[in-house]
Amino acid sequence: MTKVAIMGYGVVGSGLIELIDKNREKNDNEVVITSILVRNKEKHKNCSHYEVITTDSEELFSKESDIVIEVMGGIHPAYEYVKRALTLKKHVITANKDLIATFGQELFNIAKENSVSLKFEAAVAGGIPIIKALTESLCGNKVNAIKAILNGTTNFILTKMGSEKLSYDEALKEAQKLGFAEANPEADVEGYDAARKLAILSSLAFDKSFKWEDININGITEIDSNDFKYAKKFNCKIKLVAEAVKCRNKIYTSVKPVLVDEDSILAKIDNEVNGVILNGDEIGELIFIGKGAGKLPTGSSVYSDLNDIINCRFSDIGSFNKEKAEMINYAHKTCNSILRIRTSDKDEVVSRCRDIFNNIKIIDKSLKDEVVLYIECTSEAYVQKFIETIKDEIYYKGCKKLIFI
Amino acid sequence: MTKVAIMGYGVVGSGLIELIDKNREKNDNEVVITSILVRNKEKHKNCSHYEVITTDSEELFSKESDIVIEVMGGIHPAYEYVKRALTLKKHVITANKDLIATFGQELFNIAKENSVSLKFEAAVAGGIPIIKALTESLCGNKVNAIKAILNGTTNFILTKMGSEKLSYDEALKEAQKLGFAEANPEADVEGYDAARKLAILSSLAFDKSFKWEDININGITEIDSNDFKYAKKFNCKIKLVAEAVKCRNKIYTSVKPVLVDEDSILAKIDNEVNGVILNGDEIGELIFIGKGAGKLPTGSSVYSDLNDIINCRFSDIGSFNKEKAEMINYAHKTCNSILRIRTSDKDEVVSRCRDIFNNIKIIDKSLKDEVVLYIECTSEAYVQKFIETIKDEIYYKGCKKLIFI
Repeated sequence: MTKVAIMGYGVVGSGLIELIDKNREKNDNEVVITSILVRNKEKHKNCSHYEVITTDSEELFSKESDIVIEVMGGIHPAYEYVKRALTLKKHVITANKDLIATFGQELFNIAKENSVSLKFEAAVAGGIPIIKALTESLCGNKVNAIKAILNGTTNFILTKMGSEKLSYDEALKEAQKLGFAEANPEADVEGYDAARKLAILSSLAFDKSFKWEDININGITEIDSNDFKYAKKFNCKIKLVAEAVKCRNKIYTSVKPVLVDEDSILAKIDNEVNGVILNGDEIGELIFIGKGAGKLPTGSSVYSDLNDIINCRFSDIGSFNKEKAEMINYAHKTCNSILRIRTSDKDEVVSRCRDIFNNIKIIDKSLKDEVVLYIECTSEAYVQKFIETIKDEIYYKGCKKLIFI
Repeated sequence: MTKVAIMGYGVVGSGLIELIDKNREKNDNEVVITSILVRNKEKHKNCSHYEVITTDSEELFSKESDIVIEVMGGIHPAYEYVKRALTLKKHVITANKDLIATFGQELFNIAKENSVSLKFEAAVAGGIPIIKALTESLCGNKVNAIKAILNGTTNFILTKMGSEKLSYDEALKEAQKLGFAEANPEADVEGYDAARKLAILSSLAFDKSFKWEDININGITEIDSNDFKYAKKFNCKIKLVAEAVKCRNKIYTSVKPVLVDEDSILAKIDNEVNGVILNGDEIGELIFIGKGAGKLPTGSSVYSDLNDIINCRFSDIGSFNKEKAEMINYAHKTCNSILRIRTSDKDEVVSRCRDIFNNIKIIDKSLKDEVVLYIECTSEAYVQKFIETIKDEIYYKGCKKLIFI
């Protein structure tokens, strides 16, 4: 018999509890839920296991449990509770990417000191078993690169903007209506959520510690219908891609909207779906695509962690405690890009561009105070340097850059 | 220290040994290779670990070992060796799909009786961690369906036939030249290899035993350039797809060349790459794409099994021992299909088709003694029944059927 205390009975919590109840007879080892912590007990009065629901964390900790599962979200008090549970030598499962990205190092240390396990399959890419893949399946590999769509909200918004020609605001509203976006969508649309997940994956992949705030992050709030028009011209879709690539002994990390070829696998990952493309030195390219969020996909990942612990399948997570990765903002490779430069003198901008770049094409000169250029085969760093050089010119009013990957 | 005896030093064996040597310093637990069984010792005289190579299985079994790794392939004597190793209470890792598909039930029983583990991640889809996904990550799910490209050889041949307009023979020769096809390609091109892998995956997914010979198997040897021409007309590619779908309490299983939409994920899996699409009741669709064969991808999967055993991560594989699945040859769903009927009377065939099917289109009537028809929205079983009804007519000379999935 395994005694489990659960903190949180929201979307993920209710999915998990449904799975525990459903798989009860399948398991030789019975899972008993000894306590469920919620904020408002009344709200759950028609839910299963009502008799063990409590609003008092002290009561939860007073009940016997072998495993504590944190599916309440947010950093506080989740951090304090998880710490306490680990210190009490209980295995902990969390679905909380913010917590792992922010306090991973400390929490894995405490887990190690107390000889218990801290598992977090559901924290990245929902139902996709990417943590297990990186920590167990690819153990013989050196990972060279991660390229991923890690945020379902923004992927849904970009898909709708592209396929149904909705504006950003319309697409965001639809995402909120369908429950794919929160009332305050900032963490998603600004790219922070994807960056936190990328930091976790990068840490496991490159065996170093990563601060998510150090990642070069661009969200999707500035993307407009013209961007989609230009993307279409090049047979591309726009996706918010999280990338981490080994460049000698440094790691290029970035979360930004990019142009992906319509024929590529990344372009096939639409709506709220997530995808992760790993590149290992032995295994080559390995791709995972699946639901990145939702009650049952995420619940399924938490349940697999629970099953791992019950069956004593542990893996030692040491990478959050390793030396800090040296991150760089621009990859050592050439790419094509679209530059949308706002300016009071389009001709001057075009002429400056012609001076600097070998190969440019004017895509659109019809917009008021804006010229749209296609720049071929140069490095992103070089493009960025060009922007810096004209930044203080009187005719320069701003710039948006979209890279083809 | 973990002592390992390895049977076989071919493609997979050398990949594995390379990984063991490369990761030596990374592991706290040192892996020592105590014996390597080969057929011809001379051939390996410049290989690492030459000093422990033997041609005598008795010598291998006389050396101390905790784990025996079988990467020699073929059923005999692999079966006898694996059985003996399990009986000697050694954990066994195998990359041998033929062995697992044929003797899985017996071998897992022996492993259980002796309280050791029999692991086989590399046996299906090479570097893709699909066994771990099914046995551990999806443990809370009921799998509804598997749709997969499991044979790299045939996928390579079909890709070349489609993209470079090669004939079947030309594409096969190129595959053989590049090492993607064996001198005797029968098991691959006839679909047996894919069927064995599908039987293994189905057993894990549906928790029943499957005899691979009971699967409805069609290979790719009959596919010709006209098939690709018709496929193209419908914006499709031709892929050898292995499918297992739950239909009430039966399982529809099939390995056959089918038409897949060019825009679908399956169509993006080209050349020697493998892909598996699982559908779980909780997780929804979960897709894995990666290298299905080759020294290092396969070696990487064997290495991950080794690492699991070293870290005491075991999972109980019971499904090969469960009741036999009731398999059916036709899915309970409608589909579109292309029928190429060889006949001495095309008009008569068309008229018979019109009598039977609601919606048919003549695709090609220009071929000698053959009429090519598109049949919309009917079940494969109904199409098959129609073929049976005209089979004995004097004008009927044969039929090829291609289903759209």
